[in-house]
Amino acid sequence: MDNRVTVEQGEFKGWSKWDDQPFEHDLVGPFYFRTDEQGPVAAFRAENRHTNAAGTVHGGCLMTFADFALFVAARESFDDDSYGVTVSFSSEFLRGPQPGQLIEGRAEVLKSGRQLVFLRGIITADGKPCLNFSGSLMRLQIKS
Amino acid sequence: MDNRVTVEQGEFKGWSKWDDQPFEHDLVGPFYFRTDEQGPVAAFRAENRHTNAAGTVHGGCLMTFADFALFVAARESFDDDSYGVTVSFSSEFLRGPQPGQLIEGRAEVLKSGRQLVFLRGIITADGKPCLNFSGSLMRLQIKS
Amino acid sequence: MDNRVTVEQGEFKGWSKWDDQPFEHDLVGPFYFRTDEQGPVAAFRAENRHTNAAGTVHGGCLMTFADFALFVAARESFDDDSYGVTVSFSSEFLRGPQPGQLIEGRAEVLKSGRQLVFLRGIITADGKPCLNFSGSLMRLQIKS
Amino acid sequence: MDNRVTVEQGEFKGWSKWDDQPFEHDLVGPFYFRTDEQGPVAAFRAENRHTNAAGTVHGGCLMTFADFALFVAARESFDDDSYGVTVSFSSEFLRGPQPGQLIEGRAEVLKSGRQLVFLRGIITADGKPCLNFSGSLMRLQIKS
Repeated sequence: MDNRVTVEQGEFKGWSKWDDQPFEHDLVGPFYFRTDEQGPVAAFRAENRHTNAAGTVHGGCLMTFADFALFVAARESFDDDSYGVTVSFSSEFLRGPQPGQLIEGRAEVLKSGRQLVFLRGIITADGKPCLNFSGSLMRLQIKS
Repeated sequence: MDNRVTVEQGEFKGWSKWDDQPFEHDLVGPFYFRTDEQGPVAAFRAENRHTNAAGTVHGGCLMTFADFALFVAARESFDDDSYGVTVSFSSEFLRGPQPGQLIEGRAEVLKSGRQLVFLRGIITADGKPCLNFSGSLMRLQIKS
Repeated sequence: MDNRVTVEQGEFKGWSKWDDQPFEHDLVGPFYFRTDEQGPVAAFRAENRHTNAAGTVHGGCLMTFADFALFVAARESFDDDSYGVTVSFSSEFLRGPQPGQLIEGRAEVLKSGRQLVFLRGIITADGKPCLNFSGSLMRLQIKS
Repeated sequence: MDNRVTVEQGEFKGWSKWDDQPFEHDLVGPFYFRTDEQGPVAAFRAENRHTNAAGTVHGGCLMTFADFALFVAARESFDDDSYGVTVSFSSEFLRGPQPGQLIEGRAEVLKSGRQLVFLRGIITADGKPCLNFSGSLMRLQIKS
């Protein structure tokens, strides 16, 4: 199940996004994704609205984006009749990104099992690691 | 260091909040806190803007709120000259809350060390557990 | 599925154990369990063989015991036809226990779902918290 | 601080080990390490004594070995006057290794900070991923 739309303009022209997400797309994002030679990549440009009192990007924003990056990387693990929900997530905060920086996230599927999909990934800010994360998604069937 | 302000009206009248947080307060929140007979508690009312494509509260919103709940519970571990930053966070998703539900988070300090503060907590929706989480905060000195 | 045996003598006389576990019982343990007024509890007495170079109980020993404590707490979530395997585990180290101390672990089931059982728990040494942990177990059917 | 000794014979001849570890070396291990063209690697050969009731390597054994692999990868982050202790550890179980398989662990330092060292790694059995893990180590000074 993949309701992606293509971005028509701006910095992320040509990238894809999921626009049926009130929190992730409308409120916090939009977040974008595409596949390049290294595999699936998620991205957004950090803004002042994403920051905490110290002026760096809020950990909750990074974790929201990391959750998005999990689904970007895992989407080929799901077919037309199934989808995934996050069941566990763990992370370590390495650096606080600054507004204006390009935030990218790459995750890799470690195991795509019958019930669970396991992934790990890293978020970078202008190429420097800022969040390490792992997650597992549970596979659910779409009722027809 | 605690720049709390008191809420003057609405459902959370009399609660406190931190309003110097562009992401946590202005964009995603506001989130509120107070101390009751069980200890520190964080809360907000889930809205449609907090949801994912399935219509339940987005995991990233819950994790942002959990991070807030960590600081609510840990704030007595920091004095006028120190503050904390999240260094690790792990969570398990138990249930997806619905818009309209009261989301509450309680965390407890397991150890307040010289360098690190360790906590665990649970987020509930109308009293039912929806997120289990743990985190550690690193203690930093405010440079004078 | 529960192959428990009752301990006949020694400090843990009257407690139960699982003795079909080469690593957990024969090599590292035995570890013991029972149910008291506060619920299921796991226990063992720390020895020199459980320590690291600093003379405190090795983190790997504590995590092995925590995994045992997960199954002690979750065993009522499984019936005669099902069993569980650990799929995720996270922990924070609060203090290093000393040889001679009584190590106890209590975990609580946060959700017993159709596919996954989620738990959290704490290990103590002579009553003081030394490891905070969470885990999820996947439910598997015993093939008949 | 590195008290390594070189292995003189057997399958891991020429590798290093730390033999001042009652639990990790004497009881559960020995575990071995060296640096090859891909960086630091930890290894041991799984035996029946490492298994659970299902006949696969116990999760506690894998986590003990993962903790060892963290220190193998992080040892260049510590100098003669400092050492590290694990403060957080998280993991996902991908597959249960069989006795007889070669278990290897590789971790990478994501950040070597003033107070904390962050790492992530993967354990394989005969080359197939079986445990994904992350950890953070706190830097402590050796008192002279």
